[in-house]
Amino acid sequence: MTLKYYHAEPLANSLKSMIPLKEKGLDYESIYVDLHKFEQHSDWFVAINPEGQVPVLDHDGAIITHTTVINEYLEDVFPDAQPDSGPLRPTDPVGAARMRYWNKFVDEHVMNYVSMHGWHRLVGVIARNIDEGTFEELLSHIPLPDQRKKWATARSGFSEADLDHATEKIVYALKKIEKQLGETKWLGWDSYSLADINFYAHCGLMVNRMFPELKVDETYPRLVAWREAVSARPAVKEALASEDRTQPGLRTWSGDR
Amino acid sequence: MTLKYYHAEPLANSLKSMIPLKEKGLDYESIYVDLHKFEQHSDWFVAINPEGQVPVLDHDGAIITHTTVINEYLEDVFPDAQPDSGPLRPTDPVGAARMRYWNKFVDEHVMNYVSMHGWHRLVGVIARNIDEGTFEELLSHIPLPDQRKKWATARSGFSEADLDHATEKIVYALKKIEKQLGETKWLGWDSYSLADINFYAHCGLMVNRMFPELKVDETYPRLVAWREAVSARPAVKEALASEDRTQPGLRTWSGDR
Repeated sequence: MTLKYYHAEPLANSLKSMIPLKEKGLDYESIYVDLHKFEQHSDWFVAINPEGQVPVLDHDGAIITHTTVINEYLEDVFPDAQPDSGPLRPTDPVGAARMRYWNKFVDEHVMNYVSMHGWHRLVGVIARNIDEGTFEELLSHIPLPDQRKKWATARSGFSEADLDHATEKIVYALKKIEKQLGETKWLGWDSYSLADINFYAHCGLMVNRMFPELKVDETYPRLVAWREAVSARPAVKEALASEDRTQPGLRTWSGDR
Repeated sequence: MTLKYYHAEPLANSLKSMIPLKEKGLDYESIYVDLHKFEQHSDWFVAINPEGQVPVLDHDGAIITHTTVINEYLEDVFPDAQPDSGPLRPTDPVGAARMRYWNKFVDEHVMNYVSMHGWHRLVGVIARNIDEGTFEELLSHIPLPDQRKKWATARSGFSEADLDHATEKIVYALKKIEKQLGETKWLGWDSYSLADINFYAHCGLMVNRMFPELKVDETYPRLVAWREAVSARPAVKEALASEDRTQPGLRTWSGDR
């Protein structure tokens, strides 16, 4: 059995499927894809994932993409790999449904909005440092039309209206999750699951550093306690300590770690 | 064991979870929620689903919402309910991953775009037939901020730019699926699954009737053959033949059936 994980820095999607790999103690080959060099759109990588996006799991040649799908796949194939942590998908069907409800919420109502701010600050800087001819050439290699648009917008700058709307969506999510954590210990259930990992990787980990004006640590005490509990997990620490090659001047997004 | 299914007309989300119930031959209580009377935002319904959206599955008191989540839940709880059809989620983990990839694609890149055109034509008419004071009162009962915005926009009319973008997304999906059906018999796999049901309910069933200008039947022959194969399934026929109370003048969306 061979597992390969193609990923970028341990943040957002790349972190989201790295945590389950570490939680399960799975032995995998880590393959770094350098987003600063647009490797995700290069021929060798597009031959692996035609959508040109990280991360990708290669399990004995079966290519699995999209982190929510990868993480359910890991539960299907390695449910008992690390019995000490328990499964990351509740075995009770109602629990699995709660986990999937929250996964959908993060995938559809959180991820893209945090991502927009991240792109505005980080990818925008990268994109504007490239001369126009080279940038057009780079765009032409991006397989997904939506991603091409996102890159073009990152270069020209997202509108204030779009950024404000994204912030509204994030505040809505923070309030919703603070409320939920008053009802269940973890995100929708009594055990740590893929839903927690999802929100943590896309928002919970860095929302206080990305949006100091939201005063996350003062306003959402249950969320902060939850974040500290996730951050204290050995598998999460191990994932976060893995190599981060983000250009030093661009770490506003991922913090000063 | 009691199963209750709260739903509207057999189309889109309400159809999407009705088909698996029928495929599995499950005995359930059907509870019609009248969207023309805004019952989904009424106190009795919001007490069941605080998000004020149909459909909802109530299984012995456990409330499951969001059709992709409901359908996975039905697979978890009733995997063998109708052995003749086989499971609706491949038992091979790679197959389940393919199904989830396509479910995500439909949920995130198809559903809302077909829905926007449907709302523009159907909900817009309903919304504009209500005087402004009553409409503001109705809006105040909608729990989800995004849904409030969608209702307000339906009344004022979606912009041409947004409608054009939605059409582009639909054309992209039709091409992607036509290509996929050249590689696999069903959507991403060799057996009929929840992914087929998802695309069928949100787009495949009615895209030719909703968008005659796209010449679906002439342009996407594999998709048409696939649609006919789904439509021929007894469970699908039964779901489609269930009561449709859409106001007669508003059936552009659901066709003249």
